Amino acid sequence: MKRIGVADTTFARVDMARYAIRTLQEQGTGFRVLRRTVPGIKDLPVACRQLFRDERADLCLALGMPGPAELDRTSAEVASMGLMMTGVLEGKPIVECFVYEAEAPRPADLETLARRRAEEHAVNAFTLLFRPHDLARHAGEGLRQGFADAGPVRRTQ
Amino acid sequence: MKRIGVADTTFARVDMARYAIRTLQEQGTGFRVLRRTVPGIKDLPVACRQLFRDERADLCLALGMPGPAELDRTSAEVASMGLMMTGVLEGKPIVECFVYEAEAPRPADLETLARRRAEEHAVNAFTLLFRPHDLARHAGEGLRQGFADAGPVRRTQ
Amino acid sequence: MKRIGVADTTFARVDMARYAIRTLQEQGTGFRVLRRTVPGIKDLPVACRQLFRDERADLCLALGMPGPAELDRTSAEVASMGLMMTGVLEGKPIVECFVYEAEAPRPADLETLARRRAEEHAVNAFTLLFRPHDLARHAGEGLRQGFADAGPVRRTQ
Amino acid sequence: MKRIGVADTTFARVDMARYAIRTLQEQGTGFRVLRRTVPGIKDLPVACRQLFRDERADLCLALGMPGPAELDRTSAEVASMGLMMTGVLEGKPIVECFVYEAEAPRPADLETLARRRAEEHAVNAFTLLFRPHDLARHAGEGLRQGFADAGPVRRTQ
Amino acid sequence: MKRIGVADTTFARVDMARYAIRTLQEQGTGFRVLRRTVPGIKDLPVACRQLFRDERADLCLALGMPGPAELDRTSAEVASMGLMMTGVLEGKPIVECFVYEAEAPRPADLETLARRRAEEHAVNAFTLLFRPHDLARHAGEGLRQGFADAGPVRRTQ
Repeated sequence: MKRIGVADTTFARVDMARYAIRTLQEQGTGFRVLRRTVPGIKDLPVACRQLFRDERADLCLALGMPGPAELDRTSAEVASMGLMMTGVLEGKPIVECFVYEAEAPRPADLETLARRRAEEHAVNAFTLLFRPHDLARHAGEGLRQGFADAGPVRRTQ
Repeated sequence: MKRIGVADTTFARVDMARYAIRTLQEQGTGFRVLRRTVPGIKDLPVACRQLFRDERADLCLALGMPGPAELDRTSAEVASMGLMMTGVLEGKPIVECFVYEAEAPRPADLETLARRRAEEHAVNAFTLLFRPHDLARHAGEGLRQGFADAGPVRRTQ
Repeated sequence: MKRIGVADTTFARVDMARYAIRTLQEQGTGFRVLRRTVPGIKDLPVACRQLFRDERADLCLALGMPGPAELDRTSAEVASMGLMMTGVLEGKPIVECFVYEAEAPRPADLETLARRRAEEHAVNAFTLLFRPHDLARHAGEGLRQGFADAGPVRRTQ
Repeated sequence: MKRIGVADTTFARVDMARYAIRTLQEQGTGFRVLRRTVPGIKDLPVACRQLFRDERADLCLALGMPGPAELDRTSAEVASMGLMMTGVLEGKPIVECFVYEAEAPRPADLETLARRRAEEHAVNAFTLLFRPHDLARHAGEGLRQGFADAGPVRRTQ
Repeated sequence: MKRIGVADTTFARVDMARYAIRTLQEQGTGFRVLRRTVPGIKDLPVACRQLFRDERADLCLALGMPGPAELDRTSAEVASMGLMMTGVLEGKPIVECFVYEAEAPRPADLETLARRRAEEHAVNAFTLLFRPHDLARHAGEGLRQGFADAGPVRRTQ
């Protein structure tokens, strides 16, 4: 039985973890979800560290929504560096799923973007853990999460 | 008996630790506060490291007030990275509570913002330590510290 | 028998790993290629860490294509720092091969640039592993990957 | 007998270590000063690491003067991150005392600023080591080093 | 017998290592030079790590020449952070000698700058290793590498 950690925040304006967990459960069985909600994105790295250490997670999904201010951008960089540090030290994947408020100015678009990105990152997390070799079949195909895929530069070859 | 470390600075222009500690004590019992005051925000990460190592803190609250100059912004980034590094290495939460002078140009507003943010981060610290599952009930609700909550994108669903 | 790890992404719009692996195999024998495809560039450091730890790779080639948005630039910096951290902690080389979409606005140019850079970094990876002393003969010669060499400042001396 | 490491540079244009050491000695007794001069600010973190490891320093004072060019600013950030990393790994304080040439365009002002900041950071270093609880009495008072104190936001309360 | 590691790149447009090694040898005896040439500046940290670990170097000199593009600046920052991380983890000095193409637009000036900076950093490396106390005599004197010294703020005192 694998263990998937899901870390999310009360700062985000969409409950992305709910969408991610629902999508994970639609992918298959053989895993257990461990959720930890923290105040903001800078708290996610330690939450993941604890999910790996205390809960023996095999992979973590870190969901966050940086605010629109300049300072929020800096916070997001520090949070990303912390998630990177944690993943490298643990040697286990952390799928970072951040949605910036500035990416979708209208509330409805933000909700849709956050839901879709959370769902698509959840699929990636599941694939990384259970079918890692499936990803190689889509190498270099310009896949995106939350927006339409960019696609490969040359579609026919 | 849990132990909460509180690290703050003589550089800050508001005694945020006083507000934070008072709020912590209003939340409940079962913990002891360990305070360490250092000169500036760049000294906070080592202070937290020592609170974890020497004083066996279970969580640290790091309070600081970066100045208005461009160099102060850079210092704040380095300090944040140091707090991140410390939290990840220890595997224990550090609740970072920084108030930028530039966020509230008028002194009275700065005092109010600093007090409120310190109090709300103190509540978060207490919750993380004693009632971590309470946070999940507010996931994705757009909670803020020091300002009014942004709220969820969709209030009704 | 040496082991070369190749980490690439589904986000990239060119299958750079295919070009890199073909070039590696043209260089000689005595090694085995281990490939791991992940969603995006921020997932490359942990992929390399796992290639070193679980697959006993002696060197990794990390291939990625940051998108054109400002946020993609920041992601690339965090990914680079993660690859750096991993290489330093393992004490083993990670040849980073990133192609920025902004480097070649036209699709055909992007394909050519990505292919050439992947091929030339693959040659570098092979040389680092099997003939490290060959590189010293080209020290300070202004070699480039994907573009024409800049050449040494003084060609005759 | 405590040990205070003092690391400084030949790049700086003021002998800040001389002022810092004189001030340390005026604060009291019970410690020994260990000095290590290196070429530039990027060499300070390893100098501190060696002062902690080889000379058993209990605290380090790192003095530097970044030049006026844009590249010097970047060097200062890397140096600061290195000092942070060293302090966190050792779990011991490094008091960073940097004076930017751009802070005082006139030579006489630069000399005065560098001297005062070195002296005031030396007092902080001594206090951190010998009377850490004294700092808490000045928490949130807007203390500055090298310039006049900013003071607390509310002087009367 | 001390060991000095010299790491350089094929990307640089001047063979700085040649100048550095010649200068090292003019300084005295009692050491052996170990050279490792890598493709680019981001490969220097692992090269130094290997020189410390596998070749038992006591100090490394890392020579590189970041290109003129904006992306090269970012690469240089990541490379610098990697060198910093390596030096701190090893507790041994890495003398970073980077020459930015943008510092000397004319080829002849770039050659001269690169040669002089490599030579002066080589002298620093030798001094750090064999006569560390000599540096203290020049503390705060505004020494520079590759350009004329800035000098101390007050020449007479």
